[in-house]
Amino acid sequence: MRAILNGEGIVLGTCYYPEHWKKELWAEDLSRMLAVGIEVIRIGEFAWNKFEPQEGQFTFDFFDEFLDLAQEKGMKVIFCTPTATPPAWMSAKYPEILNADRDGHLYRHGNRQHYTYNSVKFQEFTRRLTEELGAHYGSHPAIIGWQLDNEFNCSLNEFYAESDTIAFQEFCREKYRTLDALNEAWGTVFWNQTYTAWEEVDVPRKVPADSVNPHRVLDYYRFVSDSACRYAKLQADILRKYLKPGDFITTNGIFGNLDNHRLTKESLDFMMYDSYPNFAYCLDDYRAEDFLKDRKWSRNLAQVRAISPVFGIMEQQSGANGWVNRMEAPTPRPGQMTLWTLQSIAHGADFVSYFRWRTCTFGTEIYWHGILDYSGRDNRRLLEVADIGDKVKRLDRLAGAVSGAKVGILQDYDNIWDAQVDSWHARVDRKSGASLFMALQQNHVPFDFVSLPEADLSGYEVLFYPHAAILTKEGTKKLEDWVAAGGKLVMGCRTGYKDAHGKCVMDYLPGLAAKLVGTDIPEYSFVAPDEGKVMVSWDGERAEAAVFCDQLEAVGEHAKVLARYEGGCFAGAPALVRNAYGAGEAYYFGAAFGVDTAELFLRRLEAAEPYGEQLLLPKEVELAVRKKDGTAYLFVLNYQHEAVEIEVKRPMQELLSGQTLNGKLKMKPYEVMVFV
Amino acid sequence: MRAILNGEGIVLGTCYYPEHWKKELWAEDLSRMLAVGIEVIRIGEFAWNKFEPQEGQFTFDFFDEFLDLAQEKGMKVIFCTPTATPPAWMSAKYPEILNADRDGHLYRHGNRQHYTYNSVKFQEFTRRLTEELGAHYGSHPAIIGWQLDNEFNCSLNEFYAESDTIAFQEFCREKYRTLDALNEAWGTVFWNQTYTAWEEVDVPRKVPADSVNPHRVLDYYRFVSDSACRYAKLQADILRKYLKPGDFITTNGIFGNLDNHRLTKESLDFMMYDSYPNFAYCLDDYRAEDFLKDRKWSRNLAQVRAISPVFGIMEQQSGANGWVNRMEAPTPRPGQMTLWTLQSIAHGADFVSYFRWRTCTFGTEIYWHGILDYSGRDNRRLLEVADIGDKVKRLDRLAGAVSGAKVGILQDYDNIWDAQVDSWHARVDRKSGASLFMALQQNHVPFDFVSLPEADLSGYEVLFYPHAAILTKEGTKKLEDWVAAGGKLVMGCRTGYKDAHGKCVMDYLPGLAAKLVGTDIPEYSFVAPDEGKVMVSWDGERAEAAVFCDQLEAVGEHAKVLARYEGGCFAGAPALVRNAYGAGEAYYFGAAFGVDTAELFLRRLEAAEPYGEQLLLPKEVELAVRKKDGTAYLFVLNYQHEAVEIEVKRPMQELLSGQTLNGKLKMKPYEVMVFV
Amino acid sequence: MRAILNGEGIVLGTCYYPEHWKKELWAEDLSRMLAVGIEVIRIGEFAWNKFEPQEGQFTFDFFDEFLDLAQEKGMKVIFCTPTATPPAWMSAKYPEILNADRDGHLYRHGNRQHYTYNSVKFQEFTRRLTEELGAHYGSHPAIIGWQLDNEFNCSLNEFYAESDTIAFQEFCREKYRTLDALNEAWGTVFWNQTYTAWEEVDVPRKVPADSVNPHRVLDYYRFVSDSACRYAKLQADILRKYLKPGDFITTNGIFGNLDNHRLTKESLDFMMYDSYPNFAYCLDDYRAEDFLKDRKWSRNLAQVRAISPVFGIMEQQSGANGWVNRMEAPTPRPGQMTLWTLQSIAHGADFVSYFRWRTCTFGTEIYWHGILDYSGRDNRRLLEVADIGDKVKRLDRLAGAVSGAKVGILQDYDNIWDAQVDSWHARVDRKSGASLFMALQQNHVPFDFVSLPEADLSGYEVLFYPHAAILTKEGTKKLEDWVAAGGKLVMGCRTGYKDAHGKCVMDYLPGLAAKLVGTDIPEYSFVAPDEGKVMVSWDGERAEAAVFCDQLEAVGEHAKVLARYEGGCFAGAPALVRNAYGAGEAYYFGAAFGVDTAELFLRRLEAAEPYGEQLLLPKEVELAVRKKDGTAYLFVLNYQHEAVEIEVKRPMQELLSGQTLNGKLKMKPYEVMVFV
Repeated sequence: MRAILNGEGIVLGTCYYPEHWKKELWAEDLSRMLAVGIEVIRIGEFAWNKFEPQEGQFTFDFFDEFLDLAQEKGMKVIFCTPTATPPAWMSAKYPEILNADRDGHLYRHGNRQHYTYNSVKFQEFTRRLTEELGAHYGSHPAIIGWQLDNEFNCSLNEFYAESDTIAFQEFCREKYRTLDALNEAWGTVFWNQTYTAWEEVDVPRKVPADSVNPHRVLDYYRFVSDSACRYAKLQADILRKYLKPGDFITTNGIFGNLDNHRLTKESLDFMMYDSYPNFAYCLDDYRAEDFLKDRKWSRNLAQVRAISPVFGIMEQQSGANGWVNRMEAPTPRPGQMTLWTLQSIAHGADFVSYFRWRTCTFGTEIYWHGILDYSGRDNRRLLEVADIGDKVKRLDRLAGAVSGAKVGILQDYDNIWDAQVDSWHARVDRKSGASLFMALQQNHVPFDFVSLPEADLSGYEVLFYPHAAILTKEGTKKLEDWVAAGGKLVMGCRTGYKDAHGKCVMDYLPGLAAKLVGTDIPEYSFVAPDEGKVMVSWDGERAEAAVFCDQLEAVGEHAKVLARYEGGCFAGAPALVRNAYGAGEAYYFGAAFGVDTAELFLRRLEAAEPYGEQLLLPKEVELAVRKKDGTAYLFVLNYQHEAVEIEVKRPMQELLSGQTLNGKLKMKPYEVMVFV
Repeated sequence: MRAILNGEGIVLGTCYYPEHWKKELWAEDLSRMLAVGIEVIRIGEFAWNKFEPQEGQFTFDFFDEFLDLAQEKGMKVIFCTPTATPPAWMSAKYPEILNADRDGHLYRHGNRQHYTYNSVKFQEFTRRLTEELGAHYGSHPAIIGWQLDNEFNCSLNEFYAESDTIAFQEFCREKYRTLDALNEAWGTVFWNQTYTAWEEVDVPRKVPADSVNPHRVLDYYRFVSDSACRYAKLQADILRKYLKPGDFITTNGIFGNLDNHRLTKESLDFMMYDSYPNFAYCLDDYRAEDFLKDRKWSRNLAQVRAISPVFGIMEQQSGANGWVNRMEAPTPRPGQMTLWTLQSIAHGADFVSYFRWRTCTFGTEIYWHGILDYSGRDNRRLLEVADIGDKVKRLDRLAGAVSGAKVGILQDYDNIWDAQVDSWHARVDRKSGASLFMALQQNHVPFDFVSLPEADLSGYEVLFYPHAAILTKEGTKKLEDWVAAGGKLVMGCRTGYKDAHGKCVMDYLPGLAAKLVGTDIPEYSFVAPDEGKVMVSWDGERAEAAVFCDQLEAVGEHAKVLARYEGGCFAGAPALVRNAYGAGEAYYFGAAFGVDTAELFLRRLEAAEPYGEQLLLPKEVELAVRKKDGTAYLFVLNYQHEAVEIEVKRPMQELLSGQTLNGKLKMKPYEVMVFV
Repeated sequence: MRAILNGEGIVLGTCYYPEHWKKELWAEDLSRMLAVGIEVIRIGEFAWNKFEPQEGQFTFDFFDEFLDLAQEKGMKVIFCTPTATPPAWMSAKYPEILNADRDGHLYRHGNRQHYTYNSVKFQEFTRRLTEELGAHYGSHPAIIGWQLDNEFNCSLNEFYAESDTIAFQEFCREKYRTLDALNEAWGTVFWNQTYTAWEEVDVPRKVPADSVNPHRVLDYYRFVSDSACRYAKLQADILRKYLKPGDFITTNGIFGNLDNHRLTKESLDFMMYDSYPNFAYCLDDYRAEDFLKDRKWSRNLAQVRAISPVFGIMEQQSGANGWVNRMEAPTPRPGQMTLWTLQSIAHGADFVSYFRWRTCTFGTEIYWHGILDYSGRDNRRLLEVADIGDKVKRLDRLAGAVSGAKVGILQDYDNIWDAQVDSWHARVDRKSGASLFMALQQNHVPFDFVSLPEADLSGYEVLFYPHAAILTKEGTKKLEDWVAAGGKLVMGCRTGYKDAHGKCVMDYLPGLAAKLVGTDIPEYSFVAPDEGKVMVSWDGERAEAAVFCDQLEAVGEHAKVLARYEGGCFAGAPALVRNAYGAGEAYYFGAAFGVDTAELFLRRLEAAEPYGEQLLLPKEVELAVRKKDGTAYLFVLNYQHEAVEIEVKRPMQELLSGQTLNGKLKMKPYEVMVFV
């Protein structure tokens, strides 16, 4: 059985760097960790030179000594491939391993992740090192699992080295087989971009006005993702040969231009996340008007859950963060570490590992504080970790519980990446994405991100698919089946006007969705910047039609106009159509969602406040739910520096205090309660 | 006789891309165009590969087929050299054709206009292709004229490839003959920039603080213009060998670092313009406080008129514009296409061609909407085009009419380009340019841009030459003669302090203009940022002395101080001198013009509201005038989304309605009336 | 004896460029200078080609002719090595002399200072030219001293050419001897940056996220400084062989990444400064809310004084400044040139040379106005110079006088450069630096910058060392000794947490300072952006604890808590500890200083208004003091455009008017008075 994420309990860990400290400190450090409830450490992810100090010379003494000590102390270890930081000798001798920017400037040794996945030479080095590590450490009893590399695609997620162009040509050739097919797919006849030899196809480098063919860029993002996935699989396939039974493979963090679902399916047992909610308080990026602040990390955690329903936090904030040159942040205030740890658990984490044990005294991250400061003396944060250790023991029974939400937001990589290329797509996406999350939070609606095409939709009652510009036949069929079976689907403007290449369809809009939503769109426009807010009126309630307006017409006997535009260039025209479809119904809303609009939908579709009979909550607190064996665990989290009042409407047990609570009560600043 | 711009009528056209659509759509598309009054199409400007799919292999089948169909349908065609988008095979095999940025990074295949005019290899390709196209298509009966390339200098108007340095050396050698002359002209003794071999002279590449010798940069802009003109002439000279009688050569758009007067004189029959007034409503660049918005395109149209008194619009906005990554814009509201078409006609266009027929479904410009949307279905905008077709028929009688304005703003490329190099020059230029245009618009004063040295000044009564920092003897003589003959000239601060190299003169200021304006300038200064607005008082009326102040003294018996500074470091000193000169008078105003200042000049020089006896107009509407055979056609254009009231002070015929109007009346939103 | 800075009088000069003007102007120019009291000119600093027009061909005729004329006219000359602007022939033939940006793009010919100090070829050219110049001109009787190059490190102070990497490797090898030592010093084990061959060590080039190892960057800044110092010494060592007795060597300006103390000690007789207070009024950088404006140049002048107690101004503003592309500024208003000249003298200048005689009519600096405008006509500013000439004669008696301030701000290059690398350090530094200067100005406290480790502390009563993140044992010992002897030291937050490599110490904080300040710091944090201002209360007076808070504890019997935090995450905890130490006392303040905080310290330490018994001054005026032979010369400077009232509390002589003044009196706009 796996040592963590095994459904038996919540486990705490920390990240440790034996190579950063005098060996004399190791034993004491491990003992102090164990004393505060830390059972697992992660090591090795930046230590390539400790294994291969010179090209082809391998040595294992350093980590052997440490692992034996860990074993002796009873500390479990997650071991890493250290490929995120290739050695200086490699960059110097083989500059071909280096990534480059769009103008071709190489990224030099001196930070991290300066390599490109597509360098054949770097793949060779990776292969050899991973074989060596797997063979040597695979059977060590202290090791419980492995982390691949570190934060794939974090430092850079675009690649422009020579080897990337070669790999991109191969990617395109595999995908399209013929240049005619590629030219057709990318619409290269526009501006005479037609390719007449594979060698002419390169990664999207510098062009006038920074505006490259969008279909080519969309494929380029897919290529980047493919490169990362193949690189991870190269490592995982080797490690699997050597792993002890029960040991797992994972990696950490979710970054751009990467299909994390594919990565996880191909190479991992589950995904881990690095959670730093204190970013909301960075001095160089602080926005006072942002109401949600650290609460927005719940959105990220929901993304992790969309990949691995139960997951781990490999790096959980345990001190002020910051690099020497940016991201300056204050220290977490008393209670915030506890709050953020429980935020992770509330959203599906059964393992939480603090980054890091002791703050590094050198390098770029001297301000990325760990539990301990530089001196290593006992401190307030260590005490808080000990207290968290006590608390999470009381939550062991919910280990393995999953979300079980009835509301979901549909998403897919095609549309995510298309919105990166396309500012028209991005404008509606950003607006609705923020509005929907805000409305769900304020109305205490637990929700999932639901990823197409792979997700099972059957458990959901209401799904939003805000702006699926790109629709495929398969995806549409899946939606039609789900609605026909009784689901309620809400689609927003701009649905279905593109194909999988990001090219516009010549059909009547909303293209493939037209039948499902019973809607026709004779015309469309951005909300003009001089016409103020455009509103819709839906049975007497008004809400914003944000950013963009599709002019609608209801088509067919089951379709009905529910709301019309007030203001804007389509004033008076239909703005919302509901189509009865089989046992369910599909809504087409012609604009992007404001917060008010999203709330209106939640109320009208009877999705707001699903736990309203148990808890009366102010909008300042989050409600998150995990379910297991028929029991729902209700996490109530207060992110405010002030106390808030909630009302427990019938007696419920609160797990952290062990008390049964009822009626109106005060939650302290940063307090969390878990009701059952 | 020419098929368009022949003085016989107003003609509508559209831009069409046969290569973007299935051939099955061609015939229907042409029929639908003809049905709404579109008589001309432009084709081919981005289709190089359709003629030369591989190096040296030419084929004409594709466009032969299309042209024969056009001929059959009775559609007239403007054919293009497709040189704006060289093929991928060329960039791959001959990277020497590529332009580079200042640091030497090449612009790669994937957008458009990535070539440099100065590549000998690219000139060879151009020459061969143009010969082939001229020889093959020159006699096709459907063709009525040719467009060279597309929007010269649009995507890039700086060039830093190796071939540009070689060409720049040649340009300098031709201009200066000796290095001594070049060193003297550029003042290279400053900071020891002295050149001692021609090979040392390069295009202005990267230097510390981005600050290159300004005289060298001024010559560099002239070189860029020269390169473009020579490249256009290379094409035009070839085409002229093959053109049918009556067929014309033109090109489209007005962009930076290009002497469009020379280009037109050397290579074209007339200039065409691409008019997109909807840029005023782009979401990423919208300024609510900008009162004029799309009305500012009248200023651009006046610039076109300064080159070709009667001209065409090759691309007239017919839908929302936008690239995938920027310039996001709403759709034109009902009536705006009509308004903008008539704005073009009001300023001298006798041909208006909409960009484009159907919106492209792929590539960078999927949001640069044409008349039709992606599906091609009939829509509101097509109906509006049909209505415009009806309207312009009623204006046929004014075809060939010219401006005949009595007020002008003098300009010349020396000063335009000097203000690009020189932020002191730019600050006064920008301010006065905006103020003068605003004042002319609000006081309904039709005006021309009058380009020195070529323009004939004899028809003008009042000329503004706001900030002629650079004056030449020839230019000054022309002004002196015109004033002596009765003209009223207004010059602003900073006049005459530079020579044609952009070097400062060692004379008393305003240098060559001193005699004409009877003024001496003992001292000068920017308005200090801590002293607020500086004003002048002119016979009791106060107006702004903006940005910069020359301290003035009247010199000679004919010079008289009219106004003095209030505030600023020259408070109390003369700010405005009028000099009687021959039968005319020259005004020297010591500052840049505020809107109030410009209006004050218009009133005092009796130039405001020249049609005030016929029309009483609010400042929200524009008055534009075309004259022919002694008749003035008065265009009144309402750019507002609201109705406005105007007063027709004596009965006049309104051409679009065919009615005779008199007294107070309402103009609808976006309405245009043409009085005669 | 030296011709200037000889303790005998104040001397005026100007910068002259014989090569910019027709020879016919020379004699008249020199005569006009002498007529207004200008006795010294600087020449030649950009004239390389006038000496070596082609590689290896030397000629001296041009400056021989000029120097002979100067000698004849009685004009003294400061002669320059013209190395700031190497010839075009050199850049073209030896591009290896060029500096590059971080991505490797070369800085081309066309501005100035495009060379790198570390090019062996450039050093050869410099050596040969300097030998030639020294040998030829060293004995010329008109010459009184030499300026090296021009404004070292001004245009660029980072260097990334190939020769810089080679030189950096050498620098590191000399400093660390072994790679192990370097790896330890830079903490390269973090992110596996370990170097295994010297050839792998390069200047900090492009890396992901622009974040290079900070310890490496800190050494890189030291390397840049070392490069500049060695380059200057190369020139100085040669010149010293040829100098006439009494002739001096200097250079001008103070710029970044340069240890000016070492530069001066190794190569110069004294430092000169280029003073342009009008920068405070540049149109592109003006800040209305900045109360001090041009008064801030007093801070720069105090920095010069920290290097050379009596110094010269090589370039003193005498007209509007500006390049063609930026820094647009108004002309100095009447009186400002006088004010700024006396500001220089008040802070230690005994020589003031105006930049420049006549404004250049070509090149980048056509708007960097001299005394005369382009025409050279007599003007207002020339009259003001003549008047200044009269005024400074009345100040001859104070020549050689020094500051003698009792209050100082400690500084050292380690911490200055560390704050460039480190934004946490920079945030507190910037805040306290501005606040302390503002408070000292408003409370009329003359002060010195006191540079560690070299400065003699014995004359000071109160020293601030705001944020000495880096402390060394030697530095700490010096402070301890001075406090023990009776000094009062004030240290701010973040003291002592780093070592000389910029690495964090593993000690209890404030590290090496702990004993001296009797303080322990269990925790620390930035002031969180959502918690508003944090205050301290010190015996009933409240003042800001800005930016960052150390939570303090008093340690030992001599330590006493004086103030506690109000608000913030350490509310209630000690914020200020005073430790009695020997005969003196050390204060540890846990935050950065607000202006109010700095003023509170000045009052509590009885350092405010030290001349309050003689003068009652409003905060709008500056008080600066020079002392000589027991006499204090009190400069009172009014930077306002308005008159201010001051009170002379007992009769004193005012040197500029020659009058004895007493009681309340009005100072005119920009007026200066010198009391004794």
